[in-house]
Amino acid sequence: MINITFLPADKTVSVPEGTPLLVAAKAVGIHVETPCGGKGVCGKCLVRVTVGAVDFDGGWLIGEKLTAQGFVLLCTAKVKNEDVIVLTFADINREAGKFADSLGDYSRLEPSLIPSGAAEFLVKQTRIMVPTPKSGDGLSDLDRLQGAVKAALGGQLFVPLYVLRALPETLRQQNGKIYLVTYKQDGGFTAVTILAEKKPLLGVAVDLGTTTVAVSICGEEGVPLAVKTAYNGQIAHGLDIISRINYASSPARLEELREKALGTINGLIRQLAQEQAMNPEEITSLAVSGNTTMIHLLLGVFPEYIRLEPYTPAVYHVPRYTAAEIGLCAAPNAPVDMAPGVGSYLGGDITSGALCTSLAQDSEELCLFIDIGTNGEILLGNADFILGCACSAGPAFEGGGISSGMRASAGAIERVNINKETGEISFSVIGGGEPAGICGSGMISLMAELFRAGLLDAGGKFVRENFARKNPRRIVENGRNAVFVLAESGGKTVTVTEGDINNIIRAKAAIFSACRVMLKNVEMDFSDLARVYVAGGFGRYLNMDDATQIGLLPRVPRERLVFLGNSSLMGTHMALISEKHRKKRDGLARAVTYLDLSDEVGYMDEYMAAMFLPHTDSRLF
Amino acid sequence: MINITFLPADKTVSVPEGTPLLVAAKAVGIHVETPCGGKGVCGKCLVRVTVGAVDFDGGWLIGEKLTAQGFVLLCTAKVKNEDVIVLTFADINREAGKFADSLGDYSRLEPSLIPSGAAEFLVKQTRIMVPTPKSGDGLSDLDRLQGAVKAALGGQLFVPLYVLRALPETLRQQNGKIYLVTYKQDGGFTAVTILAEKKPLLGVAVDLGTTTVAVSICGEEGVPLAVKTAYNGQIAHGLDIISRINYASSPARLEELREKALGTINGLIRQLAQEQAMNPEEITSLAVSGNTTMIHLLLGVFPEYIRLEPYTPAVYHVPRYTAAEIGLCAAPNAPVDMAPGVGSYLGGDITSGALCTSLAQDSEELCLFIDIGTNGEILLGNADFILGCACSAGPAFEGGGISSGMRASAGAIERVNINKETGEISFSVIGGGEPAGICGSGMISLMAELFRAGLLDAGGKFVRENFARKNPRRIVENGRNAVFVLAESGGKTVTVTEGDINNIIRAKAAIFSACRVMLKNVEMDFSDLARVYVAGGFGRYLNMDDATQIGLLPRVPRERLVFLGNSSLMGTHMALISEKHRKKRDGLARAVTYLDLSDEVGYMDEYMAAMFLPHTDSRLF
Repeated sequence: MINITFLPADKTVSVPEGTPLLVAAKAVGIHVETPCGGKGVCGKCLVRVTVGAVDFDGGWLIGEKLTAQGFVLLCTAKVKNEDVIVLTFADINREAGKFADSLGDYSRLEPSLIPSGAAEFLVKQTRIMVPTPKSGDGLSDLDRLQGAVKAALGGQLFVPLYVLRALPETLRQQNGKIYLVTYKQDGGFTAVTILAEKKPLLGVAVDLGTTTVAVSICGEEGVPLAVKTAYNGQIAHGLDIISRINYASSPARLEELREKALGTINGLIRQLAQEQAMNPEEITSLAVSGNTTMIHLLLGVFPEYIRLEPYTPAVYHVPRYTAAEIGLCAAPNAPVDMAPGVGSYLGGDITSGALCTSLAQDSEELCLFIDIGTNGEILLGNADFILGCACSAGPAFEGGGISSGMRASAGAIERVNINKETGEISFSVIGGGEPAGICGSGMISLMAELFRAGLLDAGGKFVRENFARKNPRRIVENGRNAVFVLAESGGKTVTVTEGDINNIIRAKAAIFSACRVMLKNVEMDFSDLARVYVAGGFGRYLNMDDATQIGLLPRVPRERLVFLGNSSLMGTHMALISEKHRKKRDGLARAVTYLDLSDEVGYMDEYMAAMFLPHTDSRLF
Repeated sequence: MINITFLPADKTVSVPEGTPLLVAAKAVGIHVETPCGGKGVCGKCLVRVTVGAVDFDGGWLIGEKLTAQGFVLLCTAKVKNEDVIVLTFADINREAGKFADSLGDYSRLEPSLIPSGAAEFLVKQTRIMVPTPKSGDGLSDLDRLQGAVKAALGGQLFVPLYVLRALPETLRQQNGKIYLVTYKQDGGFTAVTILAEKKPLLGVAVDLGTTTVAVSICGEEGVPLAVKTAYNGQIAHGLDIISRINYASSPARLEELREKALGTINGLIRQLAQEQAMNPEEITSLAVSGNTTMIHLLLGVFPEYIRLEPYTPAVYHVPRYTAAEIGLCAAPNAPVDMAPGVGSYLGGDITSGALCTSLAQDSEELCLFIDIGTNGEILLGNADFILGCACSAGPAFEGGGISSGMRASAGAIERVNINKETGEISFSVIGGGEPAGICGSGMISLMAELFRAGLLDAGGKFVRENFARKNPRRIVENGRNAVFVLAESGGKTVTVTEGDINNIIRAKAAIFSACRVMLKNVEMDFSDLARVYVAGGFGRYLNMDDATQIGLLPRVPRERLVFLGNSSLMGTHMALISEKHRKKRDGLARAVTYLDLSDEVGYMDEYMAAMFLPHTDSRLF
């Protein structure tokens, strides 16, 4: 019989050789979804074999790189003649939104971009043998610890007060055999925690968006164990960056926004830790990305000067602060790595996200990287140069300012289909079940389908006569504004107004015109681009044809378009677990030249020209 | 007319040449006590001329060294032909206890031991010109500040979060011309505060005693402006170190003791700051001394292992923590310099105090340094070796465990006189007025006088037949214990019991026998000592003849005995204001060899032999 241990559930089962892993998992109550019925084609049941090997021939589906790292599909892998340890990932349907589907995101990346091997957190865990206290040696506990660390790691150890408090008991309980979590600082080492026994290191990656906050947690294997998202608690004080900056005009209000951001992040960290049956204090590494304003608000630094000429923030490269200093829920001395920003509206979220693109590969191929959040942030470049700019898209793509809008989570309509002949409308809902609202990808899909079916005109107005013919009961006139009824069920109505449509048009126009201005700036065109990467919190998938149909993305050959999902969170996670990626990200940040669109004379003209579906210049589409 | 400015009151008056400084001071309402009636003999009206010079020929009274540093007596100095700035010190009678008389303490030191010149705090204040923000320079406020500091100071600047928060406003208000308070750390600099304009630096020195806490405050002139003392708020949880350690056996109780210590210290800091019309946040340097247990309790570190074999504390050399980390009331990032301890009962209080002795002078002369607190700590040595030990004296010398005992503050009987013929008893009270109790020096004086008058026997019992003859109404029998009525006035009675006498005898026996054991250990005798320094919180003055009479101190030629007062506070203050003294103190701490009295077989015999007045071995006295 062969022993199979499933982590993080830590359940072991003995099975005969040749047993499918899926059978073994079910035998100990491990539930992994297999939407394709175990046929090995949907790829949803990805797990990782961390010790030992199994029989698996589905490499064609998940790719060589993942296979080389021990990833297999639970449904088709079979037990060989050796014991194995299998790492499973959080139930992807637990929160049926896109962010919960984190491995799906990774699968969109070039495998060479993904860190391989065990996580290289900022912190390391080292076994230290501290000599026992001796009468008359004149050495305190701290003296002996520092001596042992100098011998083991070759540097001076700084011990923060929190750690000093735990030192005497831990040393004596363990008879001097302790584990020390440290990170390098100023040529020496700083202690984070002192442990009685070796514990798996835990890290969290935080993407602090203006509208949406996403947090992932991972262990030493380096794979996200689970991801959670929530709306940023600051939303009550303004939907976009400028209104947040305006709100933060007094110390009390700044503190209020700081606490709201911390509350949202810490709530997600606590949920994640609880699900992993961990104490948040076991988290010893953190990586955080956010736009420049969000980072100022998180730190409690006045963001006022970001929006005033000459638009100079207080900080781009945040010094290495600890979780306790910032207020994050983790080991108090856990170091927090914050992605560097490069402009007043070009923050660490896009420098992190760039790790998911060919910009991180020193490639000669020109690429455009569009991260569509409440602010749109855009990079254009290759190994020789990187140009960056930002534009205000507003929260529409994340469901903000849309009457039935919602985040891409369970209950959101994420895709719409309209039969051009019959006008019949169908849609899919994240997580199945009744629709509760519509997310960004749903809005894009809806508008593209309405436009294709002749139900929406180039100016963003519903074509009433066509509705009258095909779907008379779907349109309700409300003064000068028409309301489209997308779904009605169980007393809940999902409606879309012309105002909602207009919000999406303004958002897509801001982004498209910013891309045009950047390309013009280097005398290039969309046709010069080898890759167009799109990131953002639209939903699980963004249909590229739909996005092109409404003029959000240019019409370029389909294979050049890559949808990344939440690239900021993925990049932050990669920086959390890889020294190489932290260095690469910091290098990318230094390489970016910031283009201020408000200084670009042609921007307003481009913007006005893009306020149509898909655009006034049909040659572009 | 000549202008005279008095600091810290910041009052200026114009007077003719030749005007006595005292007259000028009175003209602007500056009150400085002149107990001798302005005759220039008591030395109480010491002030310091920091700019300019005055006519003064009282150098014979205050010594050449002080005169060279600009100190003069206000009552006899006269205005010359130039403007001057005169620094006055806190009213010494405000709290009439010894500690308020800080300059008196300094006058007992060898002038060469006292730091001269302006204070060299751990922090420095530097004027920094930060370039104004420019559009498109890609530099945040922090980037520009760090660049300017690198140019000005030649090192990397770490900016804590508190300071980062103040950065954007201060830079813009001052158009980049700011003052930065920093200290050196790990090869770079750490920012403490950022100031809009140059401000005098403030520092505080803290002596955290088991029974008494003393705090002094000083500015850049380096002279203590005022000193305050209070009983340690932990006293309710045990009078001596062992009972405090026992009390701190649970995290909640440890935290309680930590808060009590902080409460006492911070209360004194707030009082001092208020009197100087300063905000405590303006304090940017702190130095703290205390015995090993007190430092553990202040830091919230379990002290348990100090009292358990092999008596190993968690820490001797406390890392450089900030005021906020420890919880001290000051600028949050102010660095706290803590004096290193050398043994479980030999703490930073005595390594600081050693700065007041010839041990700090690399002298070949052998000296004995006795710091009598609740624990007695003793050093014996010279430039070649230092031996250190500790013994438990209990709180009796600070008024603890004595029925009418009190701290050496206003209302305490500090000296007693008994007419051997008539038996008439008189005494002096600190601050004048009615007696409220008796302090350490009062008890020593009383016991010496009773013994000399034949009213107390060698065993510490009142000689009832002699009392009956001379002072029949002074003795009240209370069972087997007699009560001696020292003073009666206004309903308040100050009494001393045989139990009180016995507490002092046990305390003095512990100390005297420890000295004997140390000397024997190096095969020496009291006669080999060039100096015997005595420190402690007895009162303003300790009468050396009285101390010798009761057997606390050995009978050595009078000129070899030096009473230092609170040497721990003085040494802490010196370390606060002088880099040379910090280094010297740390060097002294490294040089000490700790002698554990509990390992010394002869100690108990010595102790028992010392339980008489003055001693069983009369050849010693």
